[in-house]
Amino acid sequence: MRISDLSRSTGVPVPTIKFYLRERLLPPGHATAATQAQYDEGHVARLRLIRALTDVGKMPLATVRWVLDIVDNGAAATPEAVGAAHDSLPPVVPHGDEPPERALGVVEDLGWAVDPGSTSLWQLETALSAVEEVGLPLSPARLAAYAEAALDVARVDVAGVPQADPQEAVRYVVVGTVLYEPVLLALRRLAQQHLYTGDSPSPPHGPNRPGR
Amino acid sequence: MRISDLSRSTGVPVPTIKFYLRERLLPPGHATAATQAQYDEGHVARLRLIRALTDVGKMPLATVRWVLDIVDNGAAATPEAVGAAHDSLPPVVPHGDEPPERALGVVEDLGWAVDPGSTSLWQLETALSAVEEVGLPLSPARLAAYAEAALDVARVDVAGVPQADPQEAVRYVVVGTVLYEPVLLALRRLAQQHLYTGDSPSPPHGPNRPGR
Repeated sequence: MRISDLSRSTGVPVPTIKFYLRERLLPPGHATAATQAQYDEGHVARLRLIRALTDVGKMPLATVRWVLDIVDNGAAATPEAVGAAHDSLPPVVPHGDEPPERALGVVEDLGWAVDPGSTSLWQLETALSAVEEVGLPLSPARLAAYAEAALDVARVDVAGVPQADPQEAVRYVVVGTVLYEPVLLALRRLAQQHLYTGDSPSPPHGPNRPGR
Repeated sequence: MRISDLSRSTGVPVPTIKFYLRERLLPPGHATAATQAQYDEGHVARLRLIRALTDVGKMPLATVRWVLDIVDNGAAATPEAVGAAHDSLPPVVPHGDEPPERALGVVEDLGWAVDPGSTSLWQLETALSAVEEVGLPLSPARLAAYAEAALDVARVDVAGVPQADPQEAVRYVVVGTVLYEPVLLALRRLAQQHLYTGDSPSPPHGPNRPGR
């Protein structure tokens, strides 16, 4: 297909596609003439991935490039590769030389085996400090409930990893980590709203529920 | 305390504190002389809240101002107030006039009662579209697992709402929604790493586990 068709298939404007080509986020098409090139379904898939990472993942282009590099050059979804993939993803958090003691303690109390050098431990540490700072510390009961829910979600995540194709597996881990996060967060907010509304006289068909 | 003590207590540099004062994010101190003012624990708490929202919540100042307005002027944690609080929080997602059909359908299938005008429904719709676009659609089983986990977390969240002070309750909902999200996401990533590592010979004491 021509670049105009690629634009139509993906909803990405032609100038933006040309920008991604210049930036080498999108591989070049197959040249058919001096000024024409043909694009295929691989280009459509790559464009959709870029848009998902920028629009939903809210990643700057430099991070998108980083993620695409991991996807393109990824090995199998080994523990190391998964950790490296997580380390490459936003959010960027302050990072010390030694593993953060409290976050490491939390994970050890849970009996989870993770690399003490993982950036995700710093993500946890930063988040725990923040809720403490504003006077809303995580109680042990709350932490246990959060961890249990996180483990339930992670079990489904891990079970879904494609086994056949190692590169597809890394793509799944990277993309799935970033793009499923907003799903989980949206569902948490909606569940909160449901539970608050649940106090109204006739749940689950509360006053705000539309007729069908 | 003086502004220098306020800076020491919170780790926020004096020029930044002056900026927050000028922007009226922080209420003025109690003037003791033409060029001096005294600050109290209320200022310490407010500064920590601002920093948590900017550093962990990654909110731009305009959003911080919006959240602080809700906290300051909040009514009780009614379903409407919770919905309004969620609507005011990041992420900003594209928003149509009609409720998004698919997200609304998901929530109805779950039996959750939420306001069809909720921004969180658009957050869910956008996230579901994104995973579909990149060829990783949410299977019904996965959606069910995510929803169950979200509900478990929301139950703990809602149970923790302070009952005595309505303003404190709204503060809890707003701040807790934003600041607990990174805790949940960090735990999900760590749980994934644990489960991948779990394939190694001796879980849960895997090879990456530090000695104690």
